Amino acid sequence: MSTELSSIVLDISYDLSDDVDKFRGIFGDRQVINLQEQSTPADLSGIRYALVWKPDPGLYDRMPDLEVLFSVGAGVDHILEMDVIPDVPIVRFVDPSLTNRMSEWVCLQCLLHLRRQRYYDANQREHNWEQVSHPEAGELRVGVMGLGVLGLDAVRKLKVLGFDVAGWSRTKKQIDGIDTYDASQLGGFLDRTQMLVGLLPSTPDTEGIFNRDLFKLLATQTPIGGPVFINAGRGKSQVEADIIDCLKDGTLGGVSLDVFETEPLAEDSPLWDFENAYLTPHTAAESNASAMAKYVSNQIGRYEAGQDLENLVNRESGY
Amino acid sequence: MSTELSSIVLDISYDLSDDVDKFRGIFGDRQVINLQEQSTPADLSGIRYALVWKPDPGLYDRMPDLEVLFSVGAGVDHILEMDVIPDVPIVRFVDPSLTNRMSEWVCLQCLLHLRRQRYYDANQREHNWEQVSHPEAGELRVGVMGLGVLGLDAVRKLKVLGFDVAGWSRTKKQIDGIDTYDASQLGGFLDRTQMLVGLLPSTPDTEGIFNRDLFKLLATQTPIGGPVFINAGRGKSQVEADIIDCLKDGTLGGVSLDVFETEPLAEDSPLWDFENAYLTPHTAAESNASAMAKYVSNQIGRYEAGQDLENLVNRESGY
Repeated sequence: MSTELSSIVLDISYDLSDDVDKFRGIFGDRQVINLQEQSTPADLSGIRYALVWKPDPGLYDRMPDLEVLFSVGAGVDHILEMDVIPDVPIVRFVDPSLTNRMSEWVCLQCLLHLRRQRYYDANQREHNWEQVSHPEAGELRVGVMGLGVLGLDAVRKLKVLGFDVAGWSRTKKQIDGIDTYDASQLGGFLDRTQMLVGLLPSTPDTEGIFNRDLFKLLATQTPIGGPVFINAGRGKSQVEADIIDCLKDGTLGGVSLDVFETEPLAEDSPLWDFENAYLTPHTAAESNASAMAKYVSNQIGRYEAGQDLENLVNRESGY
Repeated sequence: MSTELSSIVLDISYDLSDDVDKFRGIFGDRQVINLQEQSTPADLSGIRYALVWKPDPGLYDRMPDLEVLFSVGAGVDHILEMDVIPDVPIVRFVDPSLTNRMSEWVCLQCLLHLRRQRYYDANQREHNWEQVSHPEAGELRVGVMGLGVLGLDAVRKLKVLGFDVAGWSRTKKQIDGIDTYDASQLGGFLDRTQMLVGLLPSTPDTEGIFNRDLFKLLATQTPIGGPVFINAGRGKSQVEADIIDCLKDGTLGGVSLDVFETEPLAEDSPLWDFENAYLTPHTAAESNASAMAKYVSNQIGRYEAGQDLENLVNRESGY
């Protein structure tokens, strides 16, 4: 109790007013400095930890004693794409809450397309009782691109729901009971895939990867009226002009998008109006403030006890 | 090959024209007599098997040698409620395809309510980017009533998705990792339940069980704007006038219904128009013709080899 604990700086671009009390409750004796508050001290020297989303460009200059940088999200492109990146370990936020929420969203989207929700919605509006057949999950080949913590959890849950799931990652991953493909096997992976789920990080390699050329390689024979593209990774990985064209000409039969090249999505984007496009405003897997505070507190505890930090970012690969 | 196989009679009230070829393909040398065809023989004596949905009242008189009756569905109320029930074993249709489809529907409905789909639908129509919080599955207490093959599968999959699931059945069932309740504990089960899933058979005991008195016992504190009722069992188990009143006065925050007291649902039913009611026209778990034919063929094989028939109906309990 008497040992002085290093403070932690929060530089998160969204309004923390509801959440900062949760942080303070969980950090206890460790001071929490929220840069969005007016009373923030100008001098942040001596402070060893920062938790950031899109940090102020001048932040690192003000923190000469920074030892560990924590990212609010699972992705860290918002940190790595800045001109200045401090030479300290960067820890991604990985927690069961965020992972579970992402898989809820992915499973929901796959089921919405499988079970023709928009068709039933339209019939309901018209008080129209009309029975149609639909395939069962086992007749639908889902392919998940990105097999990090989020991708692995989505693959596992989609399989439990009965989908015929395969996974793709840059380097080969072994997953019990699941066919996996690596960078050299992308063509074969896409050729089998009727429903494509993107859970890729944003890196130079993934920028614009979901474009017309890729969509054209998806399986054209599907029991659901054309291949479906589902993205909850990063908006920069998709080319929205191509998505729009592919929805128009039938190269894609439907999409579910939680991320966009520019957020918020422009009010005049044609994406909003496609019957078979399900859009959510980057809420697939919001970070839960309490879970995040516990996670960071736990990682700092490990670090101060001389244990390894978990979920460290590899700057070469970008995730 | 030379042994003569007993024919099987099909008396299914929906149009089989697309499916009867699948039956004939799977039954091979065993003759398939589809009563909807004009060329059906008047004399059905000597035939030992029939597969029926709502059979013609005179059918059994025409089949003095009937040995096993197969039901097209998992429920058999349509057979047991007729004036005449032949004194032969009745086999329910239980197959992975039907079970999987039902669980797809149940999981989809739970996720639709959890993830506020109608709210996002409305925002999408208005091109409105608005981020809101929602609870994660683990914060939602789902209760499944009916723990037969369908209920058990739904419970298992809802748990994998992260929901806090419990189960209720007339007689106590033990399920690993799941709290279960029996008939004497209905109050406690309802008191904890924020999202109620009905997968009950239609029996005298379950008729009208889902009524205002029961809905009032559900947990009133929920993170999703009131308790939700989801029914894919049988329409006769629900009182639609009560559901409508409870949606109006907030006793229920939402519903998902695949079954109705009278089907098709009347065009002027107020149920169609509730913002938070998701309706499907009894298509949650359609029977797949190929799967059904294989199942019946397999059961007949067991029976003729002197093995026990599976999934026999208990006439006392009604399922």
